[in-house]
Amino acid sequence: MDCVSDIEYPPSDCVSDIEYPPRYPEELLSRLITEVKDWQTTHGSLLKLVGTENKHTVSSRPIGVSLFPTFFPKEYFGEASNVQTLYNKLYVAISEDPQWLFDVLQDLIQGDHLANALWKIHTQVEHEGVVQDLTLGIFRSDYMLDRSWERGLEIRQVEFNTFSCAGGTHEHTDLQEAGVVVQPHNINICDERPIEYGLREANPPVPTYRVCFGEEVLASTWLTPSKHLLYHPQGKNFPPSEVSVIYMRAGYDAKEYDDYGYQSRLQLERLQAIKCPSVLCHLATFNKVQQALAMPNALFRFLPAREAARVAKTFAPLYPLDSSELGLQARKLACDPAAAKYFVMKPSLEGGGHNVYRSDIPRALERIPRESWHRYILMRLMNPPLLPNVLISPDEVYQGTVLAELGIFGACLWRRSSSVGTRESKKLRNKPELIMNRNAGWSFITKKQDVEEMSLGKGYACFDSPLLEAFPYS
Amino acid sequence: MDCVSDIEYPPSDCVSDIEYPPRYPEELLSRLITEVKDWQTTHGSLLKLVGTENKHTVSSRPIGVSLFPTFFPKEYFGEASNVQTLYNKLYVAISEDPQWLFDVLQDLIQGDHLANALWKIHTQVEHEGVVQDLTLGIFRSDYMLDRSWERGLEIRQVEFNTFSCAGGTHEHTDLQEAGVVVQPHNINICDERPIEYGLREANPPVPTYRVCFGEEVLASTWLTPSKHLLYHPQGKNFPPSEVSVIYMRAGYDAKEYDDYGYQSRLQLERLQAIKCPSVLCHLATFNKVQQALAMPNALFRFLPAREAARVAKTFAPLYPLDSSELGLQARKLACDPAAAKYFVMKPSLEGGGHNVYRSDIPRALERIPRESWHRYILMRLMNPPLLPNVLISPDEVYQGTVLAELGIFGACLWRRSSSVGTRESKKLRNKPELIMNRNAGWSFITKKQDVEEMSLGKGYACFDSPLLEAFPYS
Repeated sequence: MDCVSDIEYPPSDCVSDIEYPPRYPEELLSRLITEVKDWQTTHGSLLKLVGTENKHTVSSRPIGVSLFPTFFPKEYFGEASNVQTLYNKLYVAISEDPQWLFDVLQDLIQGDHLANALWKIHTQVEHEGVVQDLTLGIFRSDYMLDRSWERGLEIRQVEFNTFSCAGGTHEHTDLQEAGVVVQPHNINICDERPIEYGLREANPPVPTYRVCFGEEVLASTWLTPSKHLLYHPQGKNFPPSEVSVIYMRAGYDAKEYDDYGYQSRLQLERLQAIKCPSVLCHLATFNKVQQALAMPNALFRFLPAREAARVAKTFAPLYPLDSSELGLQARKLACDPAAAKYFVMKPSLEGGGHNVYRSDIPRALERIPRESWHRYILMRLMNPPLLPNVLISPDEVYQGTVLAELGIFGACLWRRSSSVGTRESKKLRNKPELIMNRNAGWSFITKKQDVEEMSLGKGYACFDSPLLEAFPYS
Repeated sequence: MDCVSDIEYPPSDCVSDIEYPPRYPEELLSRLITEVKDWQTTHGSLLKLVGTENKHTVSSRPIGVSLFPTFFPKEYFGEASNVQTLYNKLYVAISEDPQWLFDVLQDLIQGDHLANALWKIHTQVEHEGVVQDLTLGIFRSDYMLDRSWERGLEIRQVEFNTFSCAGGTHEHTDLQEAGVVVQPHNINICDERPIEYGLREANPPVPTYRVCFGEEVLASTWLTPSKHLLYHPQGKNFPPSEVSVIYMRAGYDAKEYDDYGYQSRLQLERLQAIKCPSVLCHLATFNKVQQALAMPNALFRFLPAREAARVAKTFAPLYPLDSSELGLQARKLACDPAAAKYFVMKPSLEGGGHNVYRSDIPRALERIPRESWHRYILMRLMNPPLLPNVLISPDEVYQGTVLAELGIFGACLWRRSSSVGTRESKKLRNKPELIMNRNAGWSFITKKQDVEEMSLGKGYACFDSPLLEAFPYS
C-alpha cells in the first residue's frame, strides 16, 4: 500500500510555449460557439430538459461539449485500446464465476437491496435451469492519466462498467429482434435512441422495441412454456413478436427494484433471449469487484500471468474499507483529513455517482455506522495533467483548465462453459467460450478542474475529442 | 369574374368507408407520439424556442408534424410537379423584364418602403453597370386542392415564392464558395443550416459562410474595385475569401431596410457574385405580380400560348383592389360581408403573412384609407377537401380534419439576355438563356381546419407527407 508521503504529487499545471487552444477575439469565439450550438441542435446532440415533456412536446438543449480537442498522448490512448479485449475476457470470466462473485459480494448480498435482488434472481434462475448459454456484453472501461514523481505519466482505470454503458457509438449486431429495456423519462434519449435507429436501419433491419423496466415489461411481454419471450408491440390483442436479444438501459438503481421491477428483471433473466448483460455480469460492475481484482494475485484466477500483468498495470490503487488488515489500514487513511484529500470513497455497489471526495470523507464516515463501512471502497484519486480548453455547458462558457476521462468500449459475446458449477482447476476455473471479443470505440469527456463529478447529464462534463499528440508542454 | 353565387361550395367533408387514419388505443397512440418526438429531437426536426438563446445554450422543441400522411391524389401532385419548369421559365422572364415589373408595381414602388428600396437598388446597380449576367433562382410554388360543383377537383396555386423559400430540401450546386445571408435570431435554423452542411459536405466541399443581413454584411465583406466580393470569416485582420454565390434568407421584411440593411443589400446586388436571387427576381415574388399575371392575356408576354394555358389552369381567382374596372368590382365583393367570406385579402407585397380572411375583410378595409386599398389584392379562398389526420404541434395533439398545402420547389440558373433594355418583340420581349431549369422537390404541410394561417413557425401548421392515392371517400 502506498504510504501517503509517496503520493505527494508533482505539479499538474502544464506550461506551454505554444498557444493552445487558439485565443480568438471575443466576437469570433462567440460565432464559433453559435456554429456548435446550431450543429448540435440540427444533429441531435441534445439533452431533454427535465420537466418539459408532456404528451405532445418536449424541450431540449445542447449537451455539454468542448470547443477544441484536448491533448491526450497517442501512446496512452493505444494502451487503453489494446488492453480492452483482455478486460472483456476478464469480466466474461468473472460473470461466469458465481462462487467468486458471491465470495466478494456476500456482505452486500446480505445487506443491500440491489445486490440482494440481483443475487436472488440469479439463484432462482439457476434453480429453474438456465435455457440460454449465450450472453452479450457491452462494456466501458474508464481511464484517466496520472502523473507521479516516481513513475511519470501513466494511464489508470477509474471505473469498469458492464451495465447500461452510455456515451458511446454502438455498432450493429447480426441478431434478429431486440428489446431495449429503458427507464421512463430519461433525458438522455440522444444517447439511447440512435442504437435503436441503427438496428432498424441495418441491412437486414433488426426490428427493435423499446420497453420501460417494471410494469411495462410485465404488461407487454409473455413467457411461453419453452421460455421464449413474446412481446406485444401493439398491446395484447395484437400478434406478438419473439424477442431474441434484450439490451438493458434500466434496472441499475436500487429504487427500480420494487415488486414490479423485481418481477420484470426475473422475467427477463429466465428466458431464452440473449441478455445484454446477464444478472451475473451486472453484479460484476460493482465497485467492490474492481477493488477485489486489485488485491494481490486476484487476477490469476481469471487470466494467465502475462495477461494479468498487462491488465494490472492499468489498475488504480484501490482499498477495501472492511475489517480485513488492508481494510483497517485504509480506514485510517479515510479518517485522517490530511490523507483523505488524496482519495475518493465510492459505494461498493454502483458504477458511478454517490462518490465522496477528499476532505468530505472523514465527515461522511462519521455519519455512517462503522458496521456499514464495508459498503464503501477507497480509491486514490488520479493526478491528471491540467490542460487548457473551452467548455460549452448548458450553464456557461468555461475557459480554463480541464481534466479528461477516456472510455474504451468493448463488445463481446460468449457461451457459458458446460462445466459451470464444477471445479476443473483452482486457478483458471471457468473457461467460457468467447465467440466475439473486440474493442468497440471510445468516448472522451472533460470537466472543469474544480468539479469532482464527471456527469454529462448534470452538465458538469462535456463531450470532447482526444488530440492524439504528445503534450507540447514543459 | 366569378359572381358570388357561382362559388357556393359543395360540402367538403369527406365520408369514407375505410378507417383512416387508423384509430389506435390511447396508450399506443401516446407511445407512437413519443417515438415521433424522440426521432425529431435526435434528427434536428426542431424549432428554437423564442427567447431561450444566450451565449452558451439554446432550447428547442419539435416542429409540428402530422402523425400519418394525408391523402393527396397522385394526378394533382403530378400536375403541380410537371408545371414547375414552366413556372421557373415564367418567373425568370419576369425577373428580366424591369419595364413590366415597374408597370405592375409602380404604385407600390412610389408608396411602399420595401418596394421602393428594392427598386432604388435595382436602378442604381443598372446605372453602375451590371457585372454578373448569371442569376440563381430557388422558387416554391404553393398549391391547394379546390372542389367546386361545376369543375370538380382542381389544383390551384395560392402563392409563388422566389425569395428565401423555406421548408424544402435543397440540393448541391457545383459552385465554388457561397455566402448565406440570414436574419439574426432565426428560430428555424433546422431548415437553414442543413443547406450549409450539405454544401460543406459536398464532394468537392463548397466553403460556406453565414452572415447576418445589415451591419454584419457591411463589417465583414469588402468589394474590390473589380466588384469581387471578399469575405473575412475571421475578421478583417485575417485573409479574406472570394464569394461566388450569395443565397438570401434575409432582407424580405420592410423593417430590415434601415440604412445598414439598404447599404448591405446594395453591396450584395452590385457585385460579381451570383445572387440567389437578384433584386428584380425578388420583386417578382410580390402578390401583386401573381395577381397581374392572372389578368387576361398577361401570360402571353412571357410564354407561348400552349405553355401559358398550362400555367393559367393552376391560377386561383385573383383580383386587384385598385381603381381599375375589375378593381372596383372586387372592392364591392370585399366590402360585402356575404361575399367576403369566400375571400382572403393579401398585401400586394409579401409572399406570406399579414393576410385578412373572410368576414374580417370589410372591417379591415374600414380602417384602411381608400387611397391605400390598391396595396392589397383579393384572392378567392380554396375549398379543399377536409381530410382526417392527427397533428402533433408544440401546443397540442389535434385529432380531426385538416387542410393540406403542397409546395413544389424549382431551381434554375439563367443568363440575362444581352438585348436587355431593347425591344425585340412586343409579346416575347426578353429571352434570358435558361442554363438550368428543373423541379427541385416538394414540401407538404397541413393545418387544423379552423386555423387560417399556414405558419410552421407559429405552430399552426405541421409538416406532413402526401399519401399519393385517390381519395377513398364518397
